[in-house]
Amino acid sequence: MTGLFITVEGVDGAGKSTQAELLGSWIEQRGHELVRTREPGGTRLGVEIRKLLLHGGEELGTVDPRAEALLYAADRAQHVGAVVRPALERGAVVVQDRYIDSSLAYQGAGRVLDLADVRRISEWATGGLWPQLTVLLDLDPAVAAARREDRGGGADRLESEAAAFHAAVRAGFLELAEAFPDRYLVLDASEPADVLHAAVVAAVAPLLPR
Amino acid sequence: MTGLFITVEGVDGAGKSTQAELLGSWIEQRGHELVRTREPGGTRLGVEIRKLLLHGGEELGTVDPRAEALLYAADRAQHVGAVVRPALERGAVVVQDRYIDSSLAYQGAGRVLDLADVRRISEWATGGLWPQLTVLLDLDPAVAAARREDRGGGADRLESEAAAFHAAVRAGFLELAEAFPDRYLVLDASEPADVLHAAVVAAVAPLLPR
Repeated sequence: MTGLFITVEGVDGAGKSTQAELLGSWIEQRGHELVRTREPGGTRLGVEIRKLLLHGGEELGTVDPRAEALLYAADRAQHVGAVVRPALERGAVVVQDRYIDSSLAYQGAGRVLDLADVRRISEWATGGLWPQLTVLLDLDPAVAAARREDRGGGADRLESEAAAFHAAVRAGFLELAEAFPDRYLVLDASEPADVLHAAVVAAVAPLLPR
Repeated sequence: MTGLFITVEGVDGAGKSTQAELLGSWIEQRGHELVRTREPGGTRLGVEIRKLLLHGGEELGTVDPRAEALLYAADRAQHVGAVVRPALERGAVVVQDRYIDSSLAYQGAGRVLDLADVRRISEWATGGLWPQLTVLLDLDPAVAAARREDRGGGADRLESEAAAFHAAVRAGFLELAEAFPDRYLVLDASEPADVLHAAVVAAVAPLLPR
């Protein structure tokens, strides 16, 4: 595969969308094909799965933690098979909101599941596809929560969970960054967007396909 | 767990619903709590997953085989956690259309996936819960297809696949029966329903909770 696979991770409110947009524009300006995508919900099947995951709520009853992890993995299998792999094979740069690391941080660290199991299932779902670069926008959960409130809109199921959960998610991401230092770029997401963008570009530039 | 977990397996058209109904009535007449259920679709979440699996079709595009296997596993995790385990814990008899064996026969034997992977994921989804008895209604795929045509109604996505696929599924079930002789009862589903029912009852009677 001749393309470049970049993922952007962090809690909601950390500024993932902003950084992914800025990075995407920069990549396109350099003449590369850009594929901006997300999990969950990056395919038509994934959009349906995402509805079940984020807005099931009372309609569907309590979702079993294993069922939830498997739904994320199903979305991921479809997304990698139909979108990410074909893009990388034709040499595109894929910039993606959330990937396996989100499953590990949210499901593994934040919930009751064994991290090794969640990772094993995601690796099976993707055929072992990992990004060359993961940008972690690290942010204090209290700051992230305040940003989400400013942004308005109804809280989805994940967002309405407790502060302790968000703290565990943050810790989970930081542990992953320590475990995979070669592909991780950890940024302090309380910095201004243009400062963060400059740091992202500095990490991406040497990785761009020729 | 003090209950009894019975699964009924076989290709569509083999008579699973008829035998499950006859068995269910017989169990209730003996004063046991009966839980009749199915996969996929045995929970509210499962109903939504089942819609994606069986009737996605052109709307959702081609479903990746791994995504399909993971959706079945998600349905199963929810179903076991919310329906089957609680029923077995209170001493009920669970009679279920399709379980892990269907995933193994359909996904493993019929498709492109590694059987050991599919089994491992289903075992994780269920926390390793296996039935005490699996009734396999074995039937020539050509006979099953003729029965389905008689029954009428539109063919769903799985049913419209090729005859070779159904033959592989049948072979998959028979291999499972050989691998797990202690829990498998293999019946010739071309026999009359009352003959089959008598054979099922003979196998179930010694297993009923006191």
